[in-house]
Amino acid sequence: MDGKLREFVTRHTAHHVPIALVTSGGTRTPIERNCVRYLDNFSTGTRGSYAVEELLKRGYAVIHLKREGSVSPLGRIIADVIKCERGGLSFDSVGTLFDCKLDDDVDMERSSEDDAVQTESSADSWMYFSSRENRSGNNGRRISRPSRRRGGLVSLNERVADSPLVQSTLRMYREIKMNGTLLTVEFLYVDEYLDKLKMCCEAINTSGSLALVYLAAAVSDFYIPKEKQATHKIQSRDYGINHQSGSKDDRDATIRLDPDNTLQLTLYPVPKVIPSLRRDWCPNAFVVSFKLETDFTILQQKQVLAMKKNDVQMVIGNELATRYEKVFILTRDGAGGKYFEEEGIESKLLDDDGYRVAEVTAAQGHTNSSLFCGDKIAALEHATIDYVVKRH
Amino acid sequence: MDGKLREFVTRHTAHHVPIALVTSGGTRTPIERNCVRYLDNFSTGTRGSYAVEELLKRGYAVIHLKREGSVSPLGRIIADVIKCERGGLSFDSVGTLFDCKLDDDVDMERSSEDDAVQTESSADSWMYFSSRENRSGNNGRRISRPSRRRGGLVSLNERVADSPLVQSTLRMYREIKMNGTLLTVEFLYVDEYLDKLKMCCEAINTSGSLALVYLAAAVSDFYIPKEKQATHKIQSRDYGINHQSGSKDDRDATIRLDPDNTLQLTLYPVPKVIPSLRRDWCPNAFVVSFKLETDFTILQQKQVLAMKKNDVQMVIGNELATRYEKVFILTRDGAGGKYFEEEGIESKLLDDDGYRVAEVTAAQGHTNSSLFCGDKIAALEHATIDYVVKRH
Repeated sequence: MDGKLREFVTRHTAHHVPIALVTSGGTRTPIERNCVRYLDNFSTGTRGSYAVEELLKRGYAVIHLKREGSVSPLGRIIADVIKCERGGLSFDSVGTLFDCKLDDDVDMERSSEDDAVQTESSADSWMYFSSRENRSGNNGRRISRPSRRRGGLVSLNERVADSPLVQSTLRMYREIKMNGTLLTVEFLYVDEYLDKLKMCCEAINTSGSLALVYLAAAVSDFYIPKEKQATHKIQSRDYGINHQSGSKDDRDATIRLDPDNTLQLTLYPVPKVIPSLRRDWCPNAFVVSFKLETDFTILQQKQVLAMKKNDVQMVIGNELATRYEKVFILTRDGAGGKYFEEEGIESKLLDDDGYRVAEVTAAQGHTNSSLFCGDKIAALEHATIDYVVKRH
Repeated sequence: MDGKLREFVTRHTAHHVPIALVTSGGTRTPIERNCVRYLDNFSTGTRGSYAVEELLKRGYAVIHLKREGSVSPLGRIIADVIKCERGGLSFDSVGTLFDCKLDDDVDMERSSEDDAVQTESSADSWMYFSSRENRSGNNGRRISRPSRRRGGLVSLNERVADSPLVQSTLRMYREIKMNGTLLTVEFLYVDEYLDKLKMCCEAINTSGSLALVYLAAAVSDFYIPKEKQATHKIQSRDYGINHQSGSKDDRDATIRLDPDNTLQLTLYPVPKVIPSLRRDWCPNAFVVSFKLETDFTILQQKQVLAMKKNDVQMVIGNELATRYEKVFILTRDGAGGKYFEEEGIESKLLDDDGYRVAEVTAAQGHTNSSLFCGDKIAALEHATIDYVVKRH
């Protein structure tokens, strides 16, 4: 993985392409060493996958550090069309399911349908800033139209075969593959997430202030360290069976079955890594972190505390109940922070230290683009990424 | 849901079709009322989805009570072909993705391709016992070949379009839809599972001893009852912020943040419902329950205890490490239990009470059928369901 990461960053940095690291999905922590039961953090990864798409459209090369099985960019569009779970289709499965050949592949397979191959006109491009489009990774490959094969043992449902949305998704897929602008890295457990985050941050450090870190993953606050996990499955009832194997000491300390049949768990705080990220791993990157709260009254306070403690450039606040409608973006005027008025976005200065909160809503995304056909989350993430990218 | 269940059971019972209720996947229990964090039980639902397929092949009508997002029958085959997560594609998404029209649908859409419609020869049937095949639900519909549409905006990847495995899967899909032999019911949380299990069991009670209950779901042993869940997100650090909202009393009792920043959780035992299931909900059904242990030395003992306590006809034991290679099936000779020698299956009597454990392996599935192309789990579930069905 380390080699792939370095190659990805080197290639794009050489062309001055900005690089974003986007994390998404929740983290898992096992309770037992032979994992049967675990604690999990709720997060589908939807917002993160939209962010990846929006950043790609704006010319970023993206490293997507995602939870296994969480929502994928583009995969989620196809999943909606075929009515399966949004996390069901990965980015790569778009290519394994549909005919998405690049010219290279067609050549390699010595296709007899070369005459059908055409280069997409640049007007067809789905990227907003087409000037950035050919900066990197193209390697002279042309995008081909799907080869429209006849026959085959099975065929697509008409609704899918005739869907303009699927068609435009495949166009995006081919463009991303052709430009090599997306690298996906997966995690499942919280310690795995922490290790891979460090590795990714150290890799993007090469591109200095061109790097953007967008920490949308929902990382557990508490976990059970490996040495304190139960060796065997916790017994739910006292059947008079005693485990002889496994150390009893560590189980007693963190996981205890009481005589009244309740289970007592002790969870330990997960190490906070954002300060190391800012100080050591990629000190010149622009870092955006997140706060999700169920209680709106403490959200802003928590955001300011997080910014002070972690020294990040931006903290995006979500209230659980309204998180698909609006976000509250905290920045700091002066010093490193840039502030400028923006049409349609209300912001207020919190105090003399320059902390400023802007409220960004789905409606603003809709104003900027009519593409979202009622998809509120897409519109909100569009507006959010607009706000972020302008300040990066 | 209740109406659908009753219609399903009535229709099949009228034709003396045996009905199986298969549960699969793990259950979730929230820690907080506005759910951000939860405890979960590890289970992909793979074995249960294979069991559903095997029972359908043997002429059962199946009610599949499954965890949202867990592995689906047939969906898992397509998922493997397009290399996405096994749980990514539902049974229904096979029909929304591919052209799987039944004649009825074709008629309804006044397709101009009626001439392409053919009835599958019964030799093509994927069911083992074709005599049962037309007992129910057919309503005079014929199975059509896919209409092999030309063109469309997008097309399938060649690997998928030309896959005989996908083709045979679509044949199964059409047969199941035509016969109306599968009803899917979904759950996510443990209390939801318990409610829906009761509803399903009461529905199949109509079909008396024709009913089989196959409890493959991994139900949590511990949970936090709703009234004891935290109202707001548990605060990971003491920022000097005090929650005024929400009752502090119940939070103190079950979820407590200690001064050393560890989190103390108290979990309560989930009510055990199998005794009620056997006694009240569907007393004449043949009930198969499961035991999964990480420690092999206590597995058999736990199986016997479970059979005594729950009065079920069969307990299938899995050891976590070898669960995809073999299972240990506990039955009881005499009384209600039937025992007969079977070729290739070793079994031993445990004691004078007639408790008998048979070891069923993937190799036995391979001997019976060469269809599994190295898929060990499929072979094991094939052999297991063989063993179960012969005793039902």
